[in-house]
Amino acid sequence: MSCSFGEKVKITIFGQSHSEAIGVVIDGIPSGITLDSEKIAKFMARRAPGQNAYSTKRKEADIPEIVSGVVDGITCGAPICAIIKNTNQHSKDYSKLKILPRPSHSDYPAFVKHNGFNDIRGGGNFSGRMTAPMCFAGAVAMQILEEKGIRIGAHIEKIAGISDTRFNPVSPNLKALEGKDFPLLNDSVKDEMLAKIEAARLDCDSVGGVIECAVTGLPVGLGEPMFGGVENVLSQAVFAIPAIKGIEFGNGFDCADLTGSENNDDFTITDVKISTKTNNHGGILGGLTSGMPLIFRVAVKPTPSIAKPQMTINLETNEPEELIIEGRHDPCIVPRAVPCVEAATAIAILNMVI
Amino acid sequence: MSCSFGEKVKITIFGQSHSEAIGVVIDGIPSGITLDSEKIAKFMARRAPGQNAYSTKRKEADIPEIVSGVVDGITCGAPICAIIKNTNQHSKDYSKLKILPRPSHSDYPAFVKHNGFNDIRGGGNFSGRMTAPMCFAGAVAMQILEEKGIRIGAHIEKIAGISDTRFNPVSPNLKALEGKDFPLLNDSVKDEMLAKIEAARLDCDSVGGVIECAVTGLPVGLGEPMFGGVENVLSQAVFAIPAIKGIEFGNGFDCADLTGSENNDDFTITDVKISTKTNNHGGILGGLTSGMPLIFRVAVKPTPSIAKPQMTINLETNEPEELIIEGRHDPCIVPRAVPCVEAATAIAILNMVI
Amino acid sequence: MSCSFGEKVKITIFGQSHSEAIGVVIDGIPSGITLDSEKIAKFMARRAPGQNAYSTKRKEADIPEIVSGVVDGITCGAPICAIIKNTNQHSKDYSKLKILPRPSHSDYPAFVKHNGFNDIRGGGNFSGRMTAPMCFAGAVAMQILEEKGIRIGAHIEKIAGISDTRFNPVSPNLKALEGKDFPLLNDSVKDEMLAKIEAARLDCDSVGGVIECAVTGLPVGLGEPMFGGVENVLSQAVFAIPAIKGIEFGNGFDCADLTGSENNDDFTITDVKISTKTNNHGGILGGLTSGMPLIFRVAVKPTPSIAKPQMTINLETNEPEELIIEGRHDPCIVPRAVPCVEAATAIAILNMVI
Amino acid sequence: MSCSFGEKVKITIFGQSHSEAIGVVIDGIPSGITLDSEKIAKFMARRAPGQNAYSTKRKEADIPEIVSGVVDGITCGAPICAIIKNTNQHSKDYSKLKILPRPSHSDYPAFVKHNGFNDIRGGGNFSGRMTAPMCFAGAVAMQILEEKGIRIGAHIEKIAGISDTRFNPVSPNLKALEGKDFPLLNDSVKDEMLAKIEAARLDCDSVGGVIECAVTGLPVGLGEPMFGGVENVLSQAVFAIPAIKGIEFGNGFDCADLTGSENNDDFTITDVKISTKTNNHGGILGGLTSGMPLIFRVAVKPTPSIAKPQMTINLETNEPEELIIEGRHDPCIVPRAVPCVEAATAIAILNMVI
Repeated sequence: MSCSFGEKVKITIFGQSHSEAIGVVIDGIPSGITLDSEKIAKFMARRAPGQNAYSTKRKEADIPEIVSGVVDGITCGAPICAIIKNTNQHSKDYSKLKILPRPSHSDYPAFVKHNGFNDIRGGGNFSGRMTAPMCFAGAVAMQILEEKGIRIGAHIEKIAGISDTRFNPVSPNLKALEGKDFPLLNDSVKDEMLAKIEAARLDCDSVGGVIECAVTGLPVGLGEPMFGGVENVLSQAVFAIPAIKGIEFGNGFDCADLTGSENNDDFTITDVKISTKTNNHGGILGGLTSGMPLIFRVAVKPTPSIAKPQMTINLETNEPEELIIEGRHDPCIVPRAVPCVEAATAIAILNMVI
Repeated sequence: MSCSFGEKVKITIFGQSHSEAIGVVIDGIPSGITLDSEKIAKFMARRAPGQNAYSTKRKEADIPEIVSGVVDGITCGAPICAIIKNTNQHSKDYSKLKILPRPSHSDYPAFVKHNGFNDIRGGGNFSGRMTAPMCFAGAVAMQILEEKGIRIGAHIEKIAGISDTRFNPVSPNLKALEGKDFPLLNDSVKDEMLAKIEAARLDCDSVGGVIECAVTGLPVGLGEPMFGGVENVLSQAVFAIPAIKGIEFGNGFDCADLTGSENNDDFTITDVKISTKTNNHGGILGGLTSGMPLIFRVAVKPTPSIAKPQMTINLETNEPEELIIEGRHDPCIVPRAVPCVEAATAIAILNMVI
Repeated sequence: MSCSFGEKVKITIFGQSHSEAIGVVIDGIPSGITLDSEKIAKFMARRAPGQNAYSTKRKEADIPEIVSGVVDGITCGAPICAIIKNTNQHSKDYSKLKILPRPSHSDYPAFVKHNGFNDIRGGGNFSGRMTAPMCFAGAVAMQILEEKGIRIGAHIEKIAGISDTRFNPVSPNLKALEGKDFPLLNDSVKDEMLAKIEAARLDCDSVGGVIECAVTGLPVGLGEPMFGGVENVLSQAVFAIPAIKGIEFGNGFDCADLTGSENNDDFTITDVKISTKTNNHGGILGGLTSGMPLIFRVAVKPTPSIAKPQMTINLETNEPEELIIEGRHDPCIVPRAVPCVEAATAIAILNMVI
Repeated sequence: MSCSFGEKVKITIFGQSHSEAIGVVIDGIPSGITLDSEKIAKFMARRAPGQNAYSTKRKEADIPEIVSGVVDGITCGAPICAIIKNTNQHSKDYSKLKILPRPSHSDYPAFVKHNGFNDIRGGGNFSGRMTAPMCFAGAVAMQILEEKGIRIGAHIEKIAGISDTRFNPVSPNLKALEGKDFPLLNDSVKDEMLAKIEAARLDCDSVGGVIECAVTGLPVGLGEPMFGGVENVLSQAVFAIPAIKGIEFGNGFDCADLTGSENNDDFTITDVKISTKTNNHGGILGGLTSGMPLIFRVAVKPTPSIAKPQMTINLETNEPEELIIEGRHDPCIVPRAVPCVEAATAIAILNMVI
């Protein structure tokens, strides 16, 4: 099933970009937890559109209304359903897209899959907007994880070829990212990144990037071998975020160029705590958490919605046709995707911890 | 559940490296299919150990015995169970590893997870040996896919820093790989790769690499949005292969450095078949197949079992201790991992097609 | 997971009796279906409360608001979410029940399970009210099934010891039940049943009964052996309706007293259609549909909410205490459970057919 | 999926009556458990065929060979696979059945479902023989449950109209059943039951019955509302046993004739233990365990394989034809089904407890 994730804590996401509402059902959250609604709101604001120059001008308050599962602010053990009204749709912007599929969007395969009945408005349920309920679920998950001493933080590792410092894989500095709406470890590259985004915007174009995420405080031995490994489960969650095209754990693709003696992480011990001197393995051995920080990076493609002319095929006439996409789009989705990566990670990890 | 994968065709893998047998149950294969046992045997031979200088000297016939689900060579609709006897275990080689976890292996987290009851012999059920039943299931899946015109092929894209040509993403040449036990698109780099492997072996070390896989003949619209996307499902399957640390689809991490206008794939039409001029998207749009070849690459870490001295912690004394791993190991796992990647892909794709 | 059902068409139900809203997410409904909202409304009205003397006086319009998955009245392939606002809660009626668990209700085990954080108001998510979204999903499922020639109908087989005629198992008369809000095959027993219900109501008591359900038009061979049999799947769905304590297929418990030669159903053929002369097997052989009408009966216990004094334990003092339940309750839940049984059946069957 | 059951402890059963082997994979059993192989063997012997006058003369040792998941007799956390060789097949007995479906067997729908490719020998994977691996899994589950103080016992409540005493639902006497191969609470009805079975056998016929099962020592609050209720999960497991046509919990269908005041179970308290004075609810309230003994009964139809002439349809000629079933069959399956019911119950309960 496409809209559900998780075995112990199962989230089920519904809605389309321009449907009346979007939302999420979360089943399996323990009873007796006082939800920190302020924290949830703050977390969701990091993803919300319309906040600055590099995001879409579609303004959505994105205030989740909890309609079940919570009594007097405390979880009661019943599934939690949170609903977010869609209020600022400009559906007419998309009218001609039904027969003119946008390059590198889901439009064409969705049209074929659903014989033209797919909801094309704003990308329907393929829209990045579906990450809003995911962020709600992620915020709830994160609160429970934090009470167990598990912290998740992600930063912009790269935008348009400009790189941030990477995490120290042995001791990632999550504190340095707190409160930042454009999270970088090395803030001195921020202006250069923003300039690249602005240049793309003025050029009716967009840029991509890389996000790096770290999880600290994990116990040893979470996950399972084979299909239940931490890599398997995290990938399944993270690829639900549109525009992500790759994921690598630890030193990832770089390990391909190393020898075993270079890549292996020797064990060490401090007091009674066993750890590894290096962390090329990114905190995962044999699919299980090793107790070292979990580190991974994801590639985010440049927003496919660009205002430059592009070639498509008119699905009625089967003739090539030039397409200029109008409407409001992010010239760079990377900053708003950062909390989404954290949210997907929180949901995946919660399923292993609980 | 860790040992099962798939919703429509579900495989369940059991066994440990040194248990009496390993095997797989495949539920959901349609009835009436005459299994091509020769093809299955040939496919499994590509993964089998002990065949050449660059693989472990453990010799296993790896002949699957089908004990259910097939009558007179034809599937009957009942779950297919295939069993492979373990015949050439040298269990004593591993005796001291119980308390001396090998760096970059599952030993340490598995010990903690299972309070020391984990089967340490040969890595237990974390072993690469568990890919043998996966290859059986993959060979069965591949036969069904081929009858639908879907072909899967993978090659060694890189070993120890030496690169093969990549697939032409618009028309990958799968024919060029047929019958090769060391599959390359550009065979002229073979000797250099083999030399690197041999050098690593002589140095008691190992090397890693990258595998690239392509799938052709896919219909438009397979997969689902969100958690059921082709990337999600393939990742979940492929990360079940030990030693894989990253996956990227289409141009993958390279897309991070491109603009939208560079990265987007314009549509074109030939006769009545809509396709894209380029294939940076790797055949997947919004989680759905686009009809273009599906292309992805995975990073394979260097075999962690190396004979060089390494530092570990004695789990009884909690003291550091030097470890020299004995036994028989692949100096490079990449060639034998190629059919495993194809098998995992076949199982994942079959679940979307059937 | 407790709130989800189905593999191909998955429904996820959320809400509590007195939460802000209740609802359902339906994933897997094909695109391109024009939902018949009038039919859905009519079906849901059969379950809605407050309509007559034998149901609770809680009045709820129970109008489902479809917030996703439907565009211009036509399914678009995205998950359908329907929400029903709770408007007529009298939460104060339930205030003291938190510590005075009602006999034969979920109160006590729910209190223990959730350390007192369970939503006690109206039974929380254990309430019969949760069958309203189930009926919405069932109505959608039924529409799809009817287009495939599959019809589902249930009747009151017994109330308070007064029996209706049973279905002719070889050709159940579903037409006879159409449009009835108190569905009986033999309407002459209606007054007697109503009198029993009224007597119970006046006596501050309640009565139980039996519902019989039939499905016609099923193809041969639906279902799977073992855990995927029609009996297994239907039971899992039907026991989600509160108050159901038993289910039997075909002649059910009566088969225990027969010999094989009496119980076996000989085959016959008419034109080219193979059928059985009798239908003791209730349309299911080896877990698969046989092509004969599917017949089953469920036992419905008398409403546990009665106004007579009962003994319970005060969970604060651990002392016995007399309890008189106030509020609005059905003296007989059987008539309103009839459409719920049909709905659960429709959802289960749709999962096998699609 | 039809051959798998369970979310936390998942069993996957494979094999056919006459395939080379049958078996089960059990995933999710904790590591560190010393399996009591003698107890397992004893339990499986209760189900094994060929032991007495009222069971089939097919003799099978039914000795499970554990090929994975256990090291030196102790579970290691990897999936446990147990295989049972089929040794005493008389496949020729079934040759003509391919085109002459046996009344009240799976033959006809299985033929249609699989276009004639189904394994007809001995009923293929629809055979009662598939309960042998289920009993292995059940015996493992029961050992873990017993260490938690949970005990399961079932008895023959009825055969051919002769009734045993029912359990006292408030304190079922499981001890009275220990060690009995024909388990009755009131042994004085044994001879009469055996006489009925022998009479059926001599008459080339068969008889059915009812099995009653009790579980004691359950904690309060197991299970979930809606689809995850104890009734839902137990039904899904128990209907995997061929020949079962009904299930009822507590007083079951009898509740239909009672008033609420008669049927409700008042609470009481002894020391600090809350319980109910009566147990009409069979230990389940709102889908959750109440702490009272879990009580249910299942209807077992008379063995459909009888040697009397029956009418069937020749699937080649589409003509009616008389059928006389040869081979070895149980005149009454009830005694051998008793441990199967216990096994299915153990697997279901373990999934809620673990």
